[in-house]
Amino acid sequence: MLSSDDNNNIFLGIDGGGSKCKAIVMSAENEILGTGISGPGNPLHGFEQATHSIVASTKLALADANIPESSLSNIVAGVGLAGVNLPVLFEQMNQWQHPFKAMHLTTDLLIACLGAHQGADGAVIISGTGSCGFSYVDGEEYIVGAHGFPHGDKGSGAWFGLQAAKQVLLSLDGLIVTSSLNDKLLSLLSVTTGVELVEAIAGKPAAFYARMANLVFDAAEQGDALALAIVQEGAGYIDNVATQLSKRCPPRLSLIGGLTPRLLPWLAKDVQKSLSAPLNSPEVGAVFYARQQMG
Amino acid sequence: MLSSDDNNNIFLGIDGGGSKCKAIVMSAENEILGTGISGPGNPLHGFEQATHSIVASTKLALADANIPESSLSNIVAGVGLAGVNLPVLFEQMNQWQHPFKAMHLTTDLLIACLGAHQGADGAVIISGTGSCGFSYVDGEEYIVGAHGFPHGDKGSGAWFGLQAAKQVLLSLDGLIVTSSLNDKLLSLLSVTTGVELVEAIAGKPAAFYARMANLVFDAAEQGDALALAIVQEGAGYIDNVATQLSKRCPPRLSLIGGLTPRLLPWLAKDVQKSLSAPLNSPEVGAVFYARQQMG
Repeated sequence: MLSSDDNNNIFLGIDGGGSKCKAIVMSAENEILGTGISGPGNPLHGFEQATHSIVASTKLALADANIPESSLSNIVAGVGLAGVNLPVLFEQMNQWQHPFKAMHLTTDLLIACLGAHQGADGAVIISGTGSCGFSYVDGEEYIVGAHGFPHGDKGSGAWFGLQAAKQVLLSLDGLIVTSSLNDKLLSLLSVTTGVELVEAIAGKPAAFYARMANLVFDAAEQGDALALAIVQEGAGYIDNVATQLSKRCPPRLSLIGGLTPRLLPWLAKDVQKSLSAPLNSPEVGAVFYARQQMG
Repeated sequence: MLSSDDNNNIFLGIDGGGSKCKAIVMSAENEILGTGISGPGNPLHGFEQATHSIVASTKLALADANIPESSLSNIVAGVGLAGVNLPVLFEQMNQWQHPFKAMHLTTDLLIACLGAHQGADGAVIISGTGSCGFSYVDGEEYIVGAHGFPHGDKGSGAWFGLQAAKQVLLSLDGLIVTSSLNDKLLSLLSVTTGVELVEAIAGKPAAFYARMANLVFDAAEQGDALALAIVQEGAGYIDNVATQLSKRCPPRLSLIGGLTPRLLPWLAKDVQKSLSAPLNSPEVGAVFYARQQMG
């Protein structure tokens, strides 16, 4: 076990997203001492939920690192959260009476970018439950998208899932031809009729729709015309985001997020070539951020 | 004031939708004795809210008719509610310990259709906050759409508003050309940036988006190419719904709902020709329904 004298050299990194919150404890030498995962850390889903998830994942990471919880007040935290690009949510979270020695709060986008490029300048395209593009070059942040669901987040898991649901409902009404999406979607949700499908999806959050994304890619890869059109529209949007980001001249560009393996083969060849593998995770990026803020 | 002996000849009609609940009190001779309006009567927004709105609008209609509230237990009610096409919501509402002598519960779709065609067979296309097609021919009900927002309800006010918001966000990100929708939407919501726009619309219900529909039609009528494309896609969907309904051979077809005056000029000419003006309101249709159920 580390003594409390060591705590000045220990950093906590938090990546709080819409479906889970990840915590990492790192030494001054970038050694990973422990990690933890809890529920949603996005304050868009409520301040209580977000702060609860941050503390829960932190305690798990401390336990994993064999550091007592009592050391929390001596640890500096870098915290990147989805949603705090909205000023009202940033203010709310920044006023949180947190249990850390200090909290350096920023967006999930900046920590993802810092993580992907080992703390250096660069850009990321994120496609998981949501989607967006982000660059950090010469101290300047630039965002494309990150608008949320259902009005934005094109090319994200939630967007692909919603397109599938829309098309299947139109098809069940006889307004468009039936495609292989119908059986795949109805089977995934264990329903058989349009009314049951509506009951299953009504009022559901983005994370629910994101679980339907894989079947769209499955169908497209099997040559389903409707699925192909959806995948091409979504991938085309991500290509456009890459083009926008390239105007900022980032030294590196990475594609990250849960949809990466499905989406990558559908991007334009020149976009694929412009991508570099991410070097580190967003929660490690949160530690880089805290260190940079300390000067 | 009517005596309680008259109550067997008095009917209550309820039209409970997503934004308001309308009540009407009618005599056996189809004379309108009183009307009332209250908040949302759609059980999708909660059982408490729906039953509260039904009772509130009923009391207003009784007061308007100069009938004491104590007569409620002698009055037969026809109740048409949005959302009860979903079996789980129908069961919940049908088990309500209502204050009426009897309650005949059905969908907002059937009462709208019965109202539009004076209790006779026919079909309706409804485009207000939501959208759908419905026919009632030879005792058989048929529904196209009515899937809800954001996964369905194409061609509805909420759908037009959402398309506008999506396009403006893409444009503010530099991913598509700027159209006159930008100034119109930003001005309507009193915001100036994409971040403010996202803050204004995040998590908002269908009724909020529906308030943005008019500006899409305004822009289309002024020749805005982006708005034209949205209006043509939405109107094209409504045309397809009309075609689907015509296969059921309804004696009459009406277009109803708040978006009717904006949408009508954009429908295909043959669809426009196939439309007849609605003869009565949905709440009057609810009274027709209660009478028919009594045999």
